[in-house]
Amino acid sequence: MFQVCVLGTSSAVPAFGRNLSAHVVQHNQKLFLLDCGEGTQFRLIRNRIRLRRLSAIFITHLHGDHIWGLAGLLTTLSLNARAEPLTVYGPKGLAQFLQMQFALTHSELQYPLEIVELEAALHDGALLYQDNRLTISCFVLQHHVPCFGYMLREKPKRRRLVADRAHADGIPKEYFHLLKQEVGFTLPDGREIDPNHYLGPPLPAYSYAYCTDTQYAPSIVPHVRHATLMYHEATFLDDMAQRAAETAHSTASQAADIARQAEVGQLIIGHFSARYHDLTQHLEQARAVFPDTHLAEEGIWYPIAPF
Amino acid sequence: MFQVCVLGTSSAVPAFGRNLSAHVVQHNQKLFLLDCGEGTQFRLIRNRIRLRRLSAIFITHLHGDHIWGLAGLLTTLSLNARAEPLTVYGPKGLAQFLQMQFALTHSELQYPLEIVELEAALHDGALLYQDNRLTISCFVLQHHVPCFGYMLREKPKRRRLVADRAHADGIPKEYFHLLKQEVGFTLPDGREIDPNHYLGPPLPAYSYAYCTDTQYAPSIVPHVRHATLMYHEATFLDDMAQRAAETAHSTASQAADIARQAEVGQLIIGHFSARYHDLTQHLEQARAVFPDTHLAEEGIWYPIAPF
Repeated sequence: MFQVCVLGTSSAVPAFGRNLSAHVVQHNQKLFLLDCGEGTQFRLIRNRIRLRRLSAIFITHLHGDHIWGLAGLLTTLSLNARAEPLTVYGPKGLAQFLQMQFALTHSELQYPLEIVELEAALHDGALLYQDNRLTISCFVLQHHVPCFGYMLREKPKRRRLVADRAHADGIPKEYFHLLKQEVGFTLPDGREIDPNHYLGPPLPAYSYAYCTDTQYAPSIVPHVRHATLMYHEATFLDDMAQRAAETAHSTASQAADIARQAEVGQLIIGHFSARYHDLTQHLEQARAVFPDTHLAEEGIWYPIAPF
Repeated sequence: MFQVCVLGTSSAVPAFGRNLSAHVVQHNQKLFLLDCGEGTQFRLIRNRIRLRRLSAIFITHLHGDHIWGLAGLLTTLSLNARAEPLTVYGPKGLAQFLQMQFALTHSELQYPLEIVELEAALHDGALLYQDNRLTISCFVLQHHVPCFGYMLREKPKRRRLVADRAHADGIPKEYFHLLKQEVGFTLPDGREIDPNHYLGPPLPAYSYAYCTDTQYAPSIVPHVRHATLMYHEATFLDDMAQRAAETAHSTASQAADIARQAEVGQLIIGHFSARYHDLTQHLEQARAVFPDTHLAEEGIWYPIAPF
């Protein structure tokens, strides 16, 4: 199970029922939160997402619309009796931002909170997190303040054992673990066993790229190349390219152009400016460049897998 | 028009669809916000409350569930092109709390923000705000951290002119303003005019008392005496009186006892603990002490006037 739920698609301020930035990625039994705009804890609850499964939080940058829900979420976890440690990753300044809020509000978390601060010079492409099956790394986005995108990538998967074939050749079950580990061996009857003969191709490994906020930045292409699914901000329409450049945001077709260059599987666009009610043109302009583009919809779980 | 809308009735964490503390009071064309828990700006928008009419904000205390929506609301006002100055009142530490958040998130407000910090030793009963028709003062609540309640009180109203009687006595209209100001005068025909003869009783002036968070504190009674409507926290049921005392909160019947002692017109209770889904017992326990008690309901406009 590898999927993402978009909790907010608005930029800067809530508009037309659109909320502020936050994505939650589920990978098997674990949840990862990307950004935490104001109200994120309410939308997690409304979408019946289990806060206790939260494994780590990744913040792109220290603009209010991406972090003003963070202190509230972290204290709610504490009041809900979380005991397991939690790590929050984000740009330099994040620790002071949180610690000062906790100090001035007399808040004390009942679980260990680790804050990992990122710096562009040190962390472009850095591996931040890994477990048995997933890695999460960051890369530098081009915004007015230090800003990081995140890449969640499944580790290469084992090749699947073709058990029927092994059975048919009379290989006892106790040797199957060797086959799965791609280790050759000799049977008691003297037969040399090549594991490749009993293994199918590996299951494909998928990936999710999260790119917000950023101006058009081809420098990120190597980091997100071949992502199964990419979210890229598309704050403006193309006729506002000048304004996009000034505010270090992207237009719809710029987002699509990054998707095209990176040969991603699918593109979701979001972080829409409050000046747009109808988003049809965002979709049209992006699809003209990268056909498999979709408008991010809040509360939908998007599978991170090819359609 | 004098009315209050409760935007959040939960304590500490959102629960059962109940949101975090914030009340908005409308007095004629002006709006006043009391507390600003996370998500307040979303609920103001959902309830179609015009952010531009916001005249001042009053914060009771620096606990997250009462202030984690403040930075977001203040920046949204700025992005919505507010230009008029805004004053926020609250306990010492509020200025640092806001300024640090704005500094670390590179936020710059486009309107003048004044922050007035309150101290128990200086401000118990202090008049903080007044315009032609309303005063707002604060008083000290008993909580684990410095905490203030607020009293919004209409100024005494003018007596109403009984215009028919003045007409009948042949008093020209150009003298009516003197009558309304209760000033006596002599007409050209030599008649001495006593304004009291032409004035009815003054329209009643109403008041709203906002008391949260606090343990049972009879010291507040003089400050809220005869309030037309009082909101008082009732975090716990009576069987949790011990826990209420430990956490410096009130039970339902303690809230009602303050209302009874202060002889307020009506009582609304709120700030319910997340341990309670059904609130029937809160209502029953409070009504046993003060019959005209109501459970705060979110999104309802309560008239600040006798029923």
